[in-house]
Amino acid sequence: MTPIALLTDFGNKDWYVPVMKSVIYSINPSVPIIDISHEVFSHGVDDAAFVLWNAHRYFQEKTVFCVVIDPGVGTSRRIIAVETDKHILIAPDNGVLNMVLSEALVKQVVEVKNLKFFLDDVSATFHGRDVFAPVAAHVSKGESLSSFGERISLPGNESSFIRLSSNDSGQYFGKIIYIDKFGNLISNFRIQGKLSGVVKIKGSIIPEISNTFGDVEIGQVLAYVGSSGFLEIAVRNNSAKQFLEVKYLDDIELTIE
Amino acid sequence: MTPIALLTDFGNKDWYVPVMKSVIYSINPSVPIIDISHEVFSHGVDDAAFVLWNAHRYFQEKTVFCVVIDPGVGTSRRIIAVETDKHILIAPDNGVLNMVLSEALVKQVVEVKNLKFFLDDVSATFHGRDVFAPVAAHVSKGESLSSFGERISLPGNESSFIRLSSNDSGQYFGKIIYIDKFGNLISNFRIQGKLSGVVKIKGSIIPEISNTFGDVEIGQVLAYVGSSGFLEIAVRNNSAKQFLEVKYLDDIELTIE
Amino acid sequence: MTPIALLTDFGNKDWYVPVMKSVIYSINPSVPIIDISHEVFSHGVDDAAFVLWNAHRYFQEKTVFCVVIDPGVGTSRRIIAVETDKHILIAPDNGVLNMVLSEALVKQVVEVKNLKFFLDDVSATFHGRDVFAPVAAHVSKGESLSSFGERISLPGNESSFIRLSSNDSGQYFGKIIYIDKFGNLISNFRIQGKLSGVVKIKGSIIPEISNTFGDVEIGQVLAYVGSSGFLEIAVRNNSAKQFLEVKYLDDIELTIE
Repeated sequence: MTPIALLTDFGNKDWYVPVMKSVIYSINPSVPIIDISHEVFSHGVDDAAFVLWNAHRYFQEKTVFCVVIDPGVGTSRRIIAVETDKHILIAPDNGVLNMVLSEALVKQVVEVKNLKFFLDDVSATFHGRDVFAPVAAHVSKGESLSSFGERISLPGNESSFIRLSSNDSGQYFGKIIYIDKFGNLISNFRIQGKLSGVVKIKGSIIPEISNTFGDVEIGQVLAYVGSSGFLEIAVRNNSAKQFLEVKYLDDIELTIE
Repeated sequence: MTPIALLTDFGNKDWYVPVMKSVIYSINPSVPIIDISHEVFSHGVDDAAFVLWNAHRYFQEKTVFCVVIDPGVGTSRRIIAVETDKHILIAPDNGVLNMVLSEALVKQVVEVKNLKFFLDDVSATFHGRDVFAPVAAHVSKGESLSSFGERISLPGNESSFIRLSSNDSGQYFGKIIYIDKFGNLISNFRIQGKLSGVVKIKGSIIPEISNTFGDVEIGQVLAYVGSSGFLEIAVRNNSAKQFLEVKYLDDIELTIE
Repeated sequence: MTPIALLTDFGNKDWYVPVMKSVIYSINPSVPIIDISHEVFSHGVDDAAFVLWNAHRYFQEKTVFCVVIDPGVGTSRRIIAVETDKHILIAPDNGVLNMVLSEALVKQVVEVKNLKFFLDDVSATFHGRDVFAPVAAHVSKGESLSSFGERISLPGNESSFIRLSSNDSGQYFGKIIYIDKFGNLISNFRIQGKLSGVVKIKGSIIPEISNTFGDVEIGQVLAYVGSSGFLEIAVRNNSAKQFLEVKYLDDIELTIE
């Protein structure tokens, strides 16, 4: 039985997530539901896009991703359902799927419009409950995407990442696109293979690219290629976010030697 | 298989919730457990009452709600189990069920007292583990409520909400009874149908009641009837809590025209 | 079907936990996974050790505990799998299991080294995904511990707790080893039976040891033996952490009369 994977910005305090789950179970009582995250930034489309990109690669084939980061709820934004060669993804058409789709083989996209699959009395502000949850539940039961609306085409997505490998050289300007619970700073430099270089961030200079935390002393700053394949900055056994006073979207500079 | 729905103020860091789940599984290994929330305010009876009211309407019939917001643990407060026409609810008798019960058809109430269903050596401070979890597990296995204690009667509950419809007019004084993760401010004005009016909150005047976020520009304040049926105040794509500096239980005033 | 119990410091926002779960399900699709906590302090080995100690006693026999608080990831620290008379525990060899093992009957310990059970391309920084999750999944499927590596012996652990009973007398110096969501302060004084005494903490003197919250007025400080068997300090219906301004690892003094 393929699961529904839930990713929202609804948080873990309010009733929004358990209500979505209840709606899903009312339609497909035995579907496994896996929470990806509900604590991404409120209205954090890019934040969620990166969480989804990192998570989705490990989910089994046919998983139905129900992604509700939806600052446009209550406007005319579209809702889309996308079938790739591996998964089905349902989300507002606001870019939250872009990182995933830029690397996926898209088989079809439909605009979700068929009221038959929505709850009665769709509210103007909680489509997670009234639209996304019931649609995801029906998809998980095998309803074909064409039932939900007409096929549309999406513009192709360029990668949002700066791809670098050991063949590259020169100076590159990037951003911190994610800060994790440990305070590790993840840049948009996606690195293939080993490279040597110098990193500048918030006035600090990191003179080399290490392999892992054990290469530096406890409390020292290091740059390394993290488990997602991006250049990251950390302080061993501490928080680089606090130590370097770096914020989301701050600049980072990499000079490859 | 009907689920147990858990609502506590125990948080998601400590061991209290997984211990409750382990106790439940030791009695009913295959029962589905759905987390409503564990992040309501500590000792937040009213906060939890509103979360429960919002969530319970979407849960399937026969669901067993195990509600442990229990500032009176270690006093002589009663524990009650309530059967309504739809659900079974187990909670301390401290008002946390009042919002639900004011709208439910109550079939029976028992005071939970039968030690046979409790863990051995009931502690004086963690009845979630020692009383609520095992009782909920036995109820979920079909044990009838009369096994747990004698029938009692509860005083009827008036609604805690101010019910208004398009037939009403005049000036009404309410409170902010919930602030969600987005910083949306939910009042205790429960609105049926469409109405026109002016809202005052924290020195700000909102001159009309909108339908949804898309009716105002990004960053602007709006009043609207939210997905739970209450008058809410939001800032489109931002936090009204921060923007208006409103706190839980602050005043709100509605003049219906 | 015995569950896998997950305890990490990965938090509930990032993708680390759902990725671990996906890896587990890819190997053992039907294993129940119970979250103990993902919100323990980052790199908080002692914090997690206490959460684990409190939780594990309620989990069913044969449960596989997958414990990833791993500040040494990327160094040469060992990974161990321990079979006790009740459970199997997989963790870095950094002390996070010490509280549990000091009271358990250890049947065997192996050093987890067999790459065959790891994901291909083990990263240098996310062994939760690449090592712990697949190993736990294979163990939950019944793979014997000896498949994962050679037997080793661990040094015996003394209890980290100060054990006191009504037979003891005199003055004892302890620490606050855990502060829960309610702001209750849990000391390392593990108390058996009833005892009388005076507690000093942060300049405050608590003249007696109460049974439970109901023994003092709302807003008053009390000392009592909590549901885990430790001397705790609370403020009835409020936060002792805030009221007394106590921090993790602050001193506490107990004079038994």
